[in-house]
Amino acid sequence: MLREDNPSGQAMIILGIDPGTNVTGYGLIECLGNQYRLIDYGCIRPKQGLNISLKRKQIFEALLQLMEHYGVDVASVETQYVRDNPQTSLKLGMVRGVAILAASLRQIPVFEYAPRKAKLAVSGRGSATKAQVQWMVKRLLNLPSLPEPEDAADALALAICHANSLRSNLNLGTEI
Amino acid sequence: MLREDNPSGQAMIILGIDPGTNVTGYGLIECLGNQYRLIDYGCIRPKQGLNISLKRKQIFEALLQLMEHYGVDVASVETQYVRDNPQTSLKLGMVRGVAILAASLRQIPVFEYAPRKAKLAVSGRGSATKAQVQWMVKRLLNLPSLPEPEDAADALALAICHANSLRSNLNLGTEI
Repeated sequence: MLREDNPSGQAMIILGIDPGTNVTGYGLIECLGNQYRLIDYGCIRPKQGLNISLKRKQIFEALLQLMEHYGVDVASVETQYVRDNPQTSLKLGMVRGVAILAASLRQIPVFEYAPRKAKLAVSGRGSATKAQVQWMVKRLLNLPSLPEPEDAADALALAICHANSLRSNLNLGTEI
Repeated sequence: MLREDNPSGQAMIILGIDPGTNVTGYGLIECLGNQYRLIDYGCIRPKQGLNISLKRKQIFEALLQLMEHYGVDVASVETQYVRDNPQTSLKLGMVRGVAILAASLRQIPVFEYAPRKAKLAVSGRGSATKAQVQWMVKRLLNLPSLPEPEDAADALALAICHANSLRSNLNLGTEI
């Protein structure tokens, strides 16, 4: 338990967020110096059949609750690019905006990383597949099984990516 | 004062929102049957120099306050399309997401209208210029001067557009 080893409170709780309207992955790690360990991971799945704005409300409230419950210090999210379908990008942008807002309301700084960078951080390859990311996240965090769903593994990769950037004091993501 | 004429409380307070990272216009009208009147309009300008997530936080908090203060019943926002610059669209989408979230948290339904439809509602022309929209909004609401800035006039046009749609029971925007 890193936190208990460090009563001065220097351990940092990092929340990685992989936003999506139907599945938002989250991954929490605790980071102290060269070490990090898993705290929790999972995903937020708003109820099917709700309209998009109510789905975003559920995501917002669930993220606020996670931040509160685990005393999150910093959040790490994916940089967003416009995808093939611009309407999908807009919807994703709105979920992302809601996630970043939740952090801002809790005065939690948010850093963003390109997907390529998060993959590189866990697997050494910017073009790693989702399955490779899952496998490496399992290994890095000594998990008993692959982190499921992929969205949660991606969120953990974003948290690890931020932890690595802090450690190396290099390639820190953009604070947004 | 429509509200006082109607102690049964059937008057409806409509909040039009024209989201933008630097200037978010708002316009509030009270609507009862065939009549509507101005309540307030203006714009939210987050402090210059803040990062985007803090700007969005200020917009979110200002909108929550407006909803609370005026007892807003329904919100009307512009449909978003991808613009020439996709990055601008993403930023706008995030502000829009934050505005819709504020309404959802207050359990205020949100309707969206294409810009063309809001222009048509106030000026009879879907291709009206911003200046024409300002002029017609002034006329329809018996304002002593043109509503400034343009973003506030656009927000009032969105509110009027929703009021007209309710009245005609036709062409109601999409509830989102």
